[in-house]
Parts: sequence; structure tokens; C-alpha cells
Amino acid sequence: MTDVTLSPDGDIITLDHGGATARFHAIWLRDNAWDPATRAPGNGQRLIALRDIDVGVHISAARLAGGQLQLTFAPEAREIAYDPDWLMAHRYDRDEVRAPGALPDGAEAWDAGLMENVPTGDFSAVRDHAEARRAWLAQIARYGFAKLTGGPVRDGALFDVVDLFGHVRPTNYGAKFEVRTEVNPTNLAYTGLGLQAHTDNPYRDPVPTVQVLYCLESTAEGGENMVVDGFAAARRLRTENPEWFDVLSGHCARFEYAGEAGVRLQSRRPMIELDPDGILRAVRFNNRSAAAITDVPFDVLPSYYAAYRRLGEIIDDPAMEVSFRLEPGESFLVDNTRVLHARKGYSGSGTRWFQGCYADMDGVRSTLAALETPRQEAAE
Amino acid sequence: MTDVTLSPDGDIITLDHGGATARFHAIWLRDNAWDPATRAPGNGQRLIALRDIDVGVHISAARLAGGQLQLTFAPEAREIAYDPDWLMAHRYDRDEVRAPGALPDGAEAWDAGLMENVPTGDFSAVRDHAEARRAWLAQIARYGFAKLTGGPVRDGALFDVVDLFGHVRPTNYGAKFEVRTEVNPTNLAYTGLGLQAHTDNPYRDPVPTVQVLYCLESTAEGGENMVVDGFAAARRLRTENPEWFDVLSGHCARFEYAGEAGVRLQSRRPMIELDPDGILRAVRFNNRSAAAITDVPFDVLPSYYAAYRRLGEIIDDPAMEVSFRLEPGESFLVDNTRVLHARKGYSGSGTRWFQGCYADMDGVRSTLAALETPRQEAAE
Repeated sequence: MTDVTLSPDGDIITLDHGGATARFHAIWLRDNAWDPATRAPGNGQRLIALRDIDVGVHISAARLAGGQLQLTFAPEAREIAYDPDWLMAHRYDRDEVRAPGALPDGAEAWDAGLMENVPTGDFSAVRDHAEARRAWLAQIARYGFAKLTGGPVRDGALFDVVDLFGHVRPTNYGAKFEVRTEVNPTNLAYTGLGLQAHTDNPYRDPVPTVQVLYCLESTAEGGENMVVDGFAAARRLRTENPEWFDVLSGHCARFEYAGEAGVRLQSRRPMIELDPDGILRAVRFNNRSAAAITDVPFDVLPSYYAAYRRLGEIIDDPAMEVSFRLEPGESFLVDNTRVLHARKGYSGSGTRWFQGCYADMDGVRSTLAALETPRQEAAE
Repeated sequence: MTDVTLSPDGDIITLDHGGATARFHAIWLRDNAWDPATRAPGNGQRLIALRDIDVGVHISAARLAGGQLQLTFAPEAREIAYDPDWLMAHRYDRDEVRAPGALPDGAEAWDAGLMENVPTGDFSAVRDHAEARRAWLAQIARYGFAKLTGGPVRDGALFDVVDLFGHVRPTNYGAKFEVRTEVNPTNLAYTGLGLQAHTDNPYRDPVPTVQVLYCLESTAEGGENMVVDGFAAARRLRTENPEWFDVLSGHCARFEYAGEAGVRLQSRRPMIELDPDGILRAVRFNNRSAAAITDVPFDVLPSYYAAYRRLGEIIDDPAMEVSFRLEPGESFLVDNTRVLHARKGYSGSGTRWFQGCYADMDGVRSTLAALETPRQEAAE
């Protein structure tokens, strides 16, 4: 049953539909009309600005007809039809209050338990079949990472992975970078020993929101890849000590990279970034490029460092970690705003050659949303 | 005169240097040591993680010698040298409290008064001379936009502009997009009438932080480009009505673009984005891609819409606007997280052909910082 009532001043309607009730303001309704004079039928872009809506807009009549809600707006004296399903799906009259550190819609926190069920797709299937692509992208949106197996073994094959959902973001490291290490015990800097899980390039702003790492050679022993859910780590910190969560999310850290001529990348961003309503937005964690903390008041600094240390301990906890070994033609993708990654040490003879590149999560989410929503509906 | 004192528990030093006094904690000092065992001499990256520093770290001795501060850390019993100038430049023991809506370091708010002095560089000079490049980039960092004159007139010349500081960010619109409009009064969608100043692609996340618009043909009358300082607009809103500033910065808006097959870009971000300490981070304003607001509580919504309307009025105020006309070979660059742009309407015969592309501000800031800081110092 669908029912609508209009407030005496014409400012608010109350809609009962599909077993739920929600109120809507006249200004919101007029702004979100889908008639062809308000929204371009082709691409859905709004043709009017807020300045085109009278500041005294109100509703002079509300009725139901043919399953549509028909609202007449004053002073323009125009009747516009609304889909009750669309309205209820976009209602803002809710009691729900999410606590600081809540997960974004669709995200699911994970720990080492996910090792039994590492999100994975098959390259050919994901490339050729919409449903396989949708399923692979949905895992990335949900968990912040996924493997891709069965890909080609050739220089630049990682770009084929990016083509599945978006566009490479070139940086000062190039369109791609080589992670090619001849095992050589005299060169300790390249052994990977003691490499803590991290997010990439926190000194970049905006940070690259996707990293792809693609395996081309892997005959050395060890060298497994490891990932940690930064959102799960942040939420565990909050459970253990809400004050420490607040101090890390309430102050900016600093990151810097000046390792090559002509480059001096610097950022000022929190290690735990929240949306204004407290929902987790991003995690930045990288000891190598962490610069001096200068935005934390003197009296707060000891607590900040205690929180930073504990967050690192949580990230280092094997109970948080999922690891896997990639073979040539296999790759993995991380949401670099959420999931930390690391490479375990390796030794012995043999080679290990990976290629990496950056891209952005909006392409992942856009491609996923387009696959989940028939085109026709999207344009309406 | 330089002087240092150590607290009895070894947790804090107080440094007098260059006429200022600041306290530093032992944990901060140890974490920010620049000795070659802590920081790689080549690229400055930190070689240790916080887990490598003893949780009970303290200072057992502090002395000055040869202009350096020499600190001995316990329990590791190691003496490390610090540059007092570096310490004072990075001190966090400050009383300064910035009000919400403060400008980021180095930014200067502007209005129509800047029209007398539009930030501009000459293409050849900026390309060939470090000082001209530094000066041009410094204007972008300060004002959020700058023109570039005297460039080549050929397809793709805008990429030469991006090469001056960074890398193109390709999107679903391609590496570049055409803004080529034959003047045709029967096609009102392309006249540009009533196009409100906006930031580009707020539905993308991360948003492209730089847009370059490059003029290749301009024989039509009108079609001037116009820019508005979004930070100045947000600060004016705060001066007029702090509650409205808070309501826009405290809640997420929604943006969406689904105008082509396979694309359904959606974002959930505030129109006025602040850092955790209230410093202005970004402005998003675009009526065409604004989606239904669903993250504002029912009781707050009228105030949200009033604030949104007033922000639009401020943006529309000619007193805020700087406009200029571009000729072939001229271009302008905006910091798309801060400066709104619009194209004025045009009419009559003739053609207008612009090309646009996206890039990122971190390249602007990195190239500027590298030009301002001699390489040697950066690596130390």
C-alpha cells in the first residue's frame, strides 16, 4: 500500500510505501525531480541549478496516480511525477547513527580467517564475461583486494588488468615500475627483510587508490605477498582504545618522498581518515616515507605516538594477515586507501620479477555499478 | 644563542635556538633522527619502523657541540646528532590554533580584485627556465590557478603544459577531451548559457586535482573563461553564517555521472571538505552532477539547503569572479580541489575549440618544492 500526506504549510510530504515511512522536504523533492526539464534524459545530468528553484518553493497538491506520486509545486504551478521506489531508496529521514569508525557501505572487515577464501578471479573469464567481471570487482569493493590468476606472462601484462576497470595513473615512477630483484645477499637493501606492511605513496595527494602488482618471474624461495585490512586494524584499535583511534583520526601526519632529482612529494593527511560523519575513508601507514609529525599539539604527542605504535602492532599481528604466493601470470590488486601490503623476505637462488602500476578505485566502483545496473535504468 | 635542557626523567628536551623555545619528546626525536642508520642517506627514507624503537626510550644526555645538538638515547646507549635549525623548523610545541576554515599553508584567498593581476606565465620561459617555472608553479600553489601564454597551436599541445610539472590522469573521457563547439543557435545545449561555475568531476574519487584547458581556436565572440576561489567563497559563507559553513562541511553530498555506457561514477563527499584540524581541504560544487543528498538528517536538511543556496549565491557574485579571454596557444590550469571555473556564453559566427585534460596537484607542489629546495638538502 502506498499513501501520501502533505503538511499544512506544503513544506513536507510523508510517504508510506513498501512497508516504510519517510518524510521529504519540498526543496529536496523539487531539486531531485527527474522530469526532462530538470534532468537531461540522455545522461541524467541536472539541467537546473539551485538558484533556479524559488526560495519559497512548496507543494500545493500531492496525489497518487498509476503507481506514481504526483506533486504540484508552487509558485511555479507545475506537477511533477516521482517514482515511490526511487524516493524510498533515497530517503534521508532515518534514525540510523553510525559510530565513528563505521565501515563504508558494502565493505566487510576481514582478518587472517579470509586466508581460506582469498578473493580471486580468472583473467580470461573476468576479461570476457560480464558476470565474472562483476563478481571480481565486487570482491575488491567488499574486501579491498583480489587476486587474478591465469593472465599472460609478458612485459606490460599488468595494463591488461587495469583495462578491466579503468585507467593507469602515471607517476614519477612511470606508467609502470619494475620490482625486479636478482637475489644477491651482498645487497641487503633488496632482500625485503623487515619490510612492514604499508600503503603505497602516502606522500602523494591524491594517493593512488589502486595498486596492481603482477608476477612475471618467481623462482626464488619465499617472497610471498601479504595483505592486511587497514579498516579492520583501525577498528580493532578503536575497540581497544577509543582515545587512540580519535587521536590518530583527529590529527594530520606528514609524509615525504624526495628520493630522485626534481621530486619532492609531501603530504599532510591523517593515518586514519574519516568522513565528516565518522565513516572510515582511508588509512595511510608507511614508516619509510613518514615525515616528522608537526601537527599534533605538544601535550597530545605522547598519546599520538602510543596510538601509532599500537596501530603498527595490530598491523604486524599475524592474526590480521592474509598471505599468498603469486606465480607468473598471477597478480593482485589492492584498494590502496584501505589495504596494506608487504612482501615477505626471500632467499636462495632464483629470480623474482614483478611489475607494478597505479590506478584508481573510482574506475572499479563505476564499472561494478554499471554492471550491476542496467544501462536503461542508469540513464533515467 | 643555543641552549638545551633535559627533563629529570629524560623524556623531554627544551631547546632555545634562534630566538625561539620549543620542547621535544624523546620518542619524536628518536623517530626523526637523520643518522644513516635511521634514514637512508640517498633518498631520505626511514630505515626503521616505530616497532624498532624501545617503548621506554628516553634521553640520558643532551649537549651542544659544533653547532649540533648531541642526544644520547637509552636504552640503546647511542648518541645521535641533530641540526637545531631543522628541529626548530619542525617544532610542534606551538600555541597556534587555527579556526575552522583556515587556509592551507601558502594559499591566499582572492576575489575579483585579482583581475588586475591575473597569475600568468610565458610558455617558453616556464619550459626553459627554472626560475620562471618556479614562479609560475608558485602562483598556482598560492592562488589555485594560472594562465600560460605563448604556447604552440596544435592538437595535443596541452600535454606540453602537463609535462611542465607532472602527469596526465586519463579518465573515461580519454587522456584529453575536446571542447569544440560550432556556434549553432539551434543547439541550445552547446551555447553555454547559464553554465554556473563548478569544479570538475566531483563524482570521481579521487577527484582530478588539476584541470588544464587549452585554446586552439577562438573566433566566436564571448566565451570568456571565468574562475572563482572556492576557498574564498567557503570562508565568506563562514563569516556570514558559521552554522551554514558547519552544516556543509559536516555532511557528505553525493555526486553521480552515468552519461555513457559502462560508466556509473558515484561519490559521497562534502561540498566543503576540511582536514581534521579544520583547515580547508577541498570544495566540490557542480549542480549538473549533484545527486540526491541522502546523508543529511531530516531535521538538518532545511539548513543544509539554505547553506547550499547561499554558497551558490556567493559563487555567482561578480565580486568573487576573475575572467579572461584565451587566444589560440593560451591555456589555464586550475587546482580543481579549490578553484571553480565556468565558460561564459557566446554567440555570433565563428568557432571555439579548446582541449582539456586532467592531472594532479601533487606534481605541481612536488616540482615547486624541488625547485625551491636544492637537491642536496632534500637528500640529507
